Amino acid sequence: MKIQSVTKELSLKRSVDSGTDEQRIVVQHIIQTVQSQGDDALRTYTKQFDGAELESLQVTQEEIDEAYSEFPEQMIKVIKEARDNIFTFHQKQLRETWTYTDSNGSVLGQKMTPLDSAGVYVPGGTAAYPSSVLMNVMPAKVAGVERIVMVSPPGPDGRLPAGVLVAAEIAGVQEIYKVGGAQAIAALAYGTESIKPVDKITGPGNIYVALAKREVFGDVDIDMIAGPSEIAVLADESARPAEIAADLLSQAEHDTRASSVLVTPSRTLAEETAAEVEKQLAGLPREAIARQAIDSYGAIYVTKNMKEAVGVINQLAPEHLEVMTENAMDIVEDIRHAGAIFVGRFSSEPIGDYFAGPNHVLPTNGTARFSSPLNVDDFMKKSSLIMYSEQAFRENAEKVAAFARLEGLEAHARAVEIRKENDQ
Amino acid sequence: MKIQSVTKELSLKRSVDSGTDEQRIVVQHIIQTVQSQGDDALRTYTKQFDGAELESLQVTQEEIDEAYSEFPEQMIKVIKEARDNIFTFHQKQLRETWTYTDSNGSVLGQKMTPLDSAGVYVPGGTAAYPSSVLMNVMPAKVAGVERIVMVSPPGPDGRLPAGVLVAAEIAGVQEIYKVGGAQAIAALAYGTESIKPVDKITGPGNIYVALAKREVFGDVDIDMIAGPSEIAVLADESARPAEIAADLLSQAEHDTRASSVLVTPSRTLAEETAAEVEKQLAGLPREAIARQAIDSYGAIYVTKNMKEAVGVINQLAPEHLEVMTENAMDIVEDIRHAGAIFVGRFSSEPIGDYFAGPNHVLPTNGTARFSSPLNVDDFMKKSSLIMYSEQAFRENAEKVAAFARLEGLEAHARAVEIRKENDQ
Repeated sequence: MKIQSVTKELSLKRSVDSGTDEQRIVVQHIIQTVQSQGDDALRTYTKQFDGAELESLQVTQEEIDEAYSEFPEQMIKVIKEARDNIFTFHQKQLRETWTYTDSNGSVLGQKMTPLDSAGVYVPGGTAAYPSSVLMNVMPAKVAGVERIVMVSPPGPDGRLPAGVLVAAEIAGVQEIYKVGGAQAIAALAYGTESIKPVDKITGPGNIYVALAKREVFGDVDIDMIAGPSEIAVLADESARPAEIAADLLSQAEHDTRASSVLVTPSRTLAEETAAEVEKQLAGLPREAIARQAIDSYGAIYVTKNMKEAVGVINQLAPEHLEVMTENAMDIVEDIRHAGAIFVGRFSSEPIGDYFAGPNHVLPTNGTARFSSPLNVDDFMKKSSLIMYSEQAFRENAEKVAAFARLEGLEAHARAVEIRKENDQ
Repeated sequence: MKIQSVTKELSLKRSVDSGTDEQRIVVQHIIQTVQSQGDDALRTYTKQFDGAELESLQVTQEEIDEAYSEFPEQMIKVIKEARDNIFTFHQKQLRETWTYTDSNGSVLGQKMTPLDSAGVYVPGGTAAYPSSVLMNVMPAKVAGVERIVMVSPPGPDGRLPAGVLVAAEIAGVQEIYKVGGAQAIAALAYGTESIKPVDKITGPGNIYVALAKREVFGDVDIDMIAGPSEIAVLADESARPAEIAADLLSQAEHDTRASSVLVTPSRTLAEETAAEVEKQLAGLPREAIARQAIDSYGAIYVTKNMKEAVGVINQLAPEHLEVMTENAMDIVEDIRHAGAIFVGRFSSEPIGDYFAGPNHVLPTNGTARFSSPLNVDDFMKKSSLIMYSEQAFRENAEKVAAFARLEGLEAHARAVEIRKENDQ
């Protein structure tokens, strides 16, 4: 890994694949076809893109039972425990409707209501992650969303991976459909004979899925389009190079465009970590991917001191941040921008990917400057509540009317004033 | 107004102006030009589009003082009082960082951090609303955003309206620039010599502003693109037709595409309200606009009973909802989808537009199904905090490693396991 000092503006930003014009036209065509032809279109595309001929799109209880029976029992237990941890953490985010009555008797507040329905996209192939099912479904579940739907492209045998079905069942998904790609997003947004539309779509996917989500945004809500994974480690000499290196590689193995960065005031730690990365890379099953990521987007920054190191982290706004230093919690105080912050040597990043409870759907590409991990708020709305008292009305009616007239909106002013006249 | 019964799926959805290809190309060109030429481009565009030749883009303290001196003193007081009310309401939304320690000693939580900076777009001409300045700035202020910037297109005299400057000063905006259109959005997103970039851009604008916000989204955050205004009134015979009509017209005067709807089980109320709308329309300064809105997008639905009426409201998911019925708070319990809910006859919608405290930036076009009024959360991030204890690590390391291997991510498993080995 390159060891460098900090000389200029730093950024984790990699160019986002925003698709070609041709891909966009394909996606628009697929969406229109699903809107006009419904299930027929879904079946045709599923045959064309996934090689599966399906009678029924919906996964049956028998298929789920079968997935259970062929899935390692030990892993079912682990997935359930992860689900419980995720549930507990997200439940602490849940906010109740609140109101207050001010001195003139008016009641103001926010009424919290879950979305009616949510749809989760789960990619096919090697990216069909059970953990991703849990992380997308549980915040919606905790919010109180009544209808949670999952879609995922089947294999040529017309089946979904057992792990995905098991995780969906454990998370409490009510409906699962064997459809993927832009056609699945269109079905979730606009509905077909067999799939009723949802209010929000979350979950990762390929460029066609990402483009389709952008197209339907506004008609339904979507989550953020995720970029390649990132980890930044902020460490001093109290940290162990082998552990840092292992964590850097855990993100590098995701994607050739993943970014793994160490920021430290210690040149010794920098050098030892670089050597460890090289050593641990050899023999990883996904060595080629990880190596390319490390070569292209990996870096070790040696800073003048810890303060400068913290500044570098805040500039990077990484998706995952590990803080392995003396007095780590004090340093966390000064961190302004990071998706998830892992503190201390026992908080290895994969602990958060799978098990600790916080969500693993996190802002990438520097967007941690302004956005948050997937959370319960993403599945709730906050309607304003205003019950103005007669006293408040009488005290303020003329002010409101004057403000409205200042802005040239006479009917606004009259709406207030007519209530005064009506009372005389 | 048309009086009709409920026979089919209802929707407030009007087609959104998503711009022509030509407009999109213009906007992309403007953004690129601002990125490459900075302030020079801003000055050139401001001359071209606004007819103003500016030396300095930034509004000076002298200009603000001048605006103050020419602005009615009484209105300064009203704007300050509105600011205080908005501040109080939004402060109740503010959430603190929280953590909890679970039974095995791990600390988990959410670290709340305000965005570093925010930019507010304020349109020019008749849409330069001081209330809009307050509503966009105060949530950011309450969140703790340190740098709040305002941009707005100047008149040909190179000035901004006094009301906008006064409101910006009262709201606590630190920097104000005389630039509008797509060029202002580009400057806020990417920065120029005189305007440092921000993390989030909010505020309404014309189609060029809306397209520019879409273009820069991802590099910075944006608020939702607002559609035309909507009001739905849910009422029974306890409500007064003249007051309902006045409120319906207060939204209709905004825009020829505004939507004003009454939903009631009472045919008598329906007929009396229709007559009142006709009567009050005559002589409104914006009569032509309001009449076209009422004719095109106004409706009175007579329902079988109150339950059906509530169902209609939940289908519509209106931006503004007024509930003027007996036992109004009981009925509010059953409302699932609305941007802001005004309860009782003294809660005329303009009270919320200007003064009560809740935000007037609200979800339109049915998006209240899944989104919220502008609020303090929009200017904060919630970073996950994970400080795993040694005990928790020892109990769960093998489970996490097994989960990672199930998903084919060996480096994830090793990152956990190396910590066990290192300890032996």
